[in-house]
Formats: sequence, structure tokens, C-alpha cells
Amino acid sequence: MNKKYIGFLHPGAMGISLAATAQNTGHIAYWVSQGRSPDTYERAAKQSLVETQTIQELCDTCSVIISICPPQAATEVAEQVLACSFTGIYADANAISPQRAKRIAQLMNAAGVEFVDGSIIGGPAWKPDTTWFYLSGPAADHVAVCFSGGPLATEVIGDNIGKASALKMCYAANTKATSALLGATVAAAEEMGVRNELEKHWSRQDSDYTQNTHARITRVTAKAWRFSGEMEEIATTFENAGLPNGFHLAAREIYQRLAKFKGADPLPSVEDVLNTLLNPGKS
Amino acid sequence: MNKKYIGFLHPGAMGISLAATAQNTGHIAYWVSQGRSPDTYERAAKQSLVETQTIQELCDTCSVIISICPPQAATEVAEQVLACSFTGIYADANAISPQRAKRIAQLMNAAGVEFVDGSIIGGPAWKPDTTWFYLSGPAADHVAVCFSGGPLATEVIGDNIGKASALKMCYAANTKATSALLGATVAAAEEMGVRNELEKHWSRQDSDYTQNTHARITRVTAKAWRFSGEMEEIATTFENAGLPNGFHLAAREIYQRLAKFKGADPLPSVEDVLNTLLNPGKS
Repeated sequence: MNKKYIGFLHPGAMGISLAATAQNTGHIAYWVSQGRSPDTYERAAKQSLVETQTIQELCDTCSVIISICPPQAATEVAEQVLACSFTGIYADANAISPQRAKRIAQLMNAAGVEFVDGSIIGGPAWKPDTTWFYLSGPAADHVAVCFSGGPLATEVIGDNIGKASALKMCYAANTKATSALLGATVAAAEEMGVRNELEKHWSRQDSDYTQNTHARITRVTAKAWRFSGEMEEIATTFENAGLPNGFHLAAREIYQRLAKFKGADPLPSVEDVLNTLLNPGKS
Repeated sequence: MNKKYIGFLHPGAMGISLAATAQNTGHIAYWVSQGRSPDTYERAAKQSLVETQTIQELCDTCSVIISICPPQAATEVAEQVLACSFTGIYADANAISPQRAKRIAQLMNAAGVEFVDGSIIGGPAWKPDTTWFYLSGPAADHVAVCFSGGPLATEVIGDNIGKASALKMCYAANTKATSALLGATVAAAEEMGVRNELEKHWSRQDSDYTQNTHARITRVTAKAWRFSGEMEEIATTFENAGLPNGFHLAAREIYQRLAKFKGADPLPSVEDVLNTLLNPGKS
């Protein structure tokens, strides 16, 4: 097998699991330390990623770069790589609209970089059958082979740039907007003094529903700061498909209100979540 | 037991099941034939409701009136009853915002009519444990006793006008907006050429999910014309609770696009639904 030098921008909770999969496949995983947090440093060290100081150094070393970052940062990361005259394969694995994926692809192609569209469905890939890495584009196979040796499932779904992103947008359109809607619904019930009645009714139909809902609306808080950007990408995606963008603009608003819980551990209580949703100006 | 004369404005699929419950409880159920459809006539005749020609005649005969109509018509029905100098108990069982319920209550109270706020969760009440009629307001007990003899479960949840409506708004905020979101999501996937991939992924996680989703997005079409008004009421409710109204304005748009399927039997195919969502200008 052809051992590849693969750069990860940047190894968060998801990215580090992809880097580990690449290592298990027989490749060398790199990261950039400049400007990253102590948490990222610790993750990279624990997984024995090879440190480069700068994006320039990473671009000079690696033939494949995987962009895995909050959707809000996807274009900026691509531009940073382009500024380093990178000439390999660049895969964007982020939750971005197909429109944004195509715009990044145009920039990359104009600079002689091969762009691969990617998207990840599932949590960090440490166990089989939990996480899928979908890829599309003419060079998608070259990225898929980087991750064949671990629990991550990779699947190439065609030649079109934007297809992997479109799949992610549709999948998350449902899951993450529904979580936001549930948060807003329980908050509305709380505000109007009918939360007990609503939860009692839910329990009549499904004894676990209320508990599952509470788990769901508290679980999203730690990642809400990132989800708000994803909701904006989905709103753009729906608008471009000729469908209403309001579900996801409203979900963005809900996640923006919850952004202060970034990285919360332990997670806030249901009461904290509702109080924050109902008093967005206060902290 | 005190036999009551109860008027139903108007006996649709849900209303006729409430009228039947009132009859089973020992009361006399009335309807108004003027201006109603052949379907309503048939339902009323089959259930042996007593026909009155006009709303005036119904108001002169009945001591209790139950308003059960599309949310869009709730205020108009109330005004028609007020114009007849009705002086009994008026219960609004419709899916309207607590704000609208309170406005109707003010009109009623000013005219000496006792207003009861009501809302129904579930389908037509022909079997036990399927349908709940929630009631709130000082005179709620007087309405509850009208329906104690059938499969409909009635529950008084307090003295405040608006509380029963608030509960319905929150319950439907979740169920009906989620159905609309699912329709929009599958339509977006279809438009972008990733529907097969999305449905395959869903099936990986839950073998019934795609089939259940198809059932859900086709089932709502026949009632979509009515749901669009309900979504508008919920948007108002959320806005008044200080929460984003976009989920339900988007859901209203989805249901407006599906309004042409009013009463469809058999239900349209999934392809028909998606085609209609993606080509809203055409019919």
C-alpha cells in the first residue's frame, strides 16, 4: 500500500477519530499546532499525530488534506490552504451547503488542487457501524482509500461535487432542526404554563418520550455554537432547492441562544436550557 | 342527569365524533344545515343529529355550543354566534393560539356568553385512549360533563382561558411541523439527487424509517389545507412566547403547497407529494 501523508485541519473530537482511522490504515497523520487550543494539542499528542507548526509546513508535507472544522470556518480553512500553494488533494468533510462546496471546489481547481466533497454522518468514529464518511467527486476514491482500515465506513456516492454535502444537509436538516424544534416547544410550554400537561400527554402516548426529549435538548447544548452555522448552511441549501428556509433559520436562532453552553460538561439541566431559550439577552 | 341541547358548529370528521359522544352521554346534538356540504349532511344524518336550518335557530335552541372548525374559521364562527344573541356556554375546541382564544373570550364575555377554552389532541374519538379533549376556564366543568359517556377523554386543566389552546399549540408544534420538515427534507433530497442515498442511510439506522416517513408525508396531504392555518396559529403562539416563529411559518408554506390534495382519497403517492412541493406554482 502507498503510505500517504495526510493533514487534518483541525483535529477536534471528530477529526481525531478520522486521523486515527488513517493511521490504522497505514498512513501518517499530521496536524498544525499554531493557533490551536490546549485541547487540540492534547488530542493530537494522545493519538501521536505528527505536529507541524504552520499550515504552510503541513501543505509542503502532505499530499492529502482533510478539512474538518465548524461549517463557519470551512471557506477560511480552504483559503488558508490555497495561500500556501498546496497542490495535492483537498477533501472538505464539513457540514456545508453544496453551493459552498462547489464554490470552494472552483477556487481549488483554479489553483490546480483536486477537490473532493465529503460529509460525515454519525459521531466520532471509534466503533463500527456508527459513522459514515460520504465522498463525491472525480477523485473521491483517492480519499476513500485513506480510511479503509478503521471503524469508519467510507462510501463514494458519485462524481458530482456537492452530492456528499447535499446528503449531509438533508440528513441534518431533519435531526438537528427537530432537536431545536423540541427545545423551542418545551420552552413555549414552560412560558405558557402548560409544560406539565404537555409532558403528561406525551407520556400517555410513549412512556419514554419526555425523558428522551429532555436528553435530546440538553445534549445539543455543548455543540450548539457549531450547529448554528450548520443550520445556516441548511437554510441556504433548502432555499436553493426551492423550499422554505424558515425551519433552519429558526433552528439557527435556537442554537445561537444556546451557544453559551459551548463544551459544557456536565451538560446543563433542562431548566437551564429553557431559561436560556426564554431569556436570550441574559447570560 | 340534566339533558342538554348542544350545538356543533360544524360536524366534520372530528366534530361528529364529539356529537356522538354527547349523545351517548344522554344529550341532544344539533347541527346547522345552511351552507354546509353534502358530506356534512351525510355525517349528521348517519349519526341522527337534529337539524336546524340556521345558526340563529341553533342559538335559540341550545344551551351549549361547541365550535369545531378549521382554525382559519374560528373567529368567524364565534362572530356568527354572537350575532344571534346567544346566551349560553360557548366552547371553542379549535387549534388556535391562546391569544386568539382570549380575544374570542373577551367578545363572548362582553355579550354575556360564558366562554370555555378547549382543544383536542388525537383523531376522531371512536375508540378509547385515542382522543383527549382538554378544557380550561371557569365554566370548563359544564362542558366536560357533556362528554362523559363516550370514548373521548375529557380533562379540565385549570381556570385560565388560553391554557387548553396553549397545550394544543405546543403538542401540534412538534408533530405537524416535524411532518412538514420531513416532507421538505425528502423534497430537498429529491431535488438535489440524493434521495436514494438519504433513504438508504435512514434504513441503516432504522429499517422502518423511510417507509414511516413516506406514510407520514403522504398522510398529511388530505388535511394540509387545514394544517396551514394551524401552523399560522402556532407561529403566533411561539412569537408571543418569545421564541422563533420560523419553524411554523415554513411548515405553513409546506402545507399551503399541499393544499390542493384536500380530502384526497386515495392519498397521493410520495412522488406526487414531492413533485407538488418542488413545483408550487403548477397544479
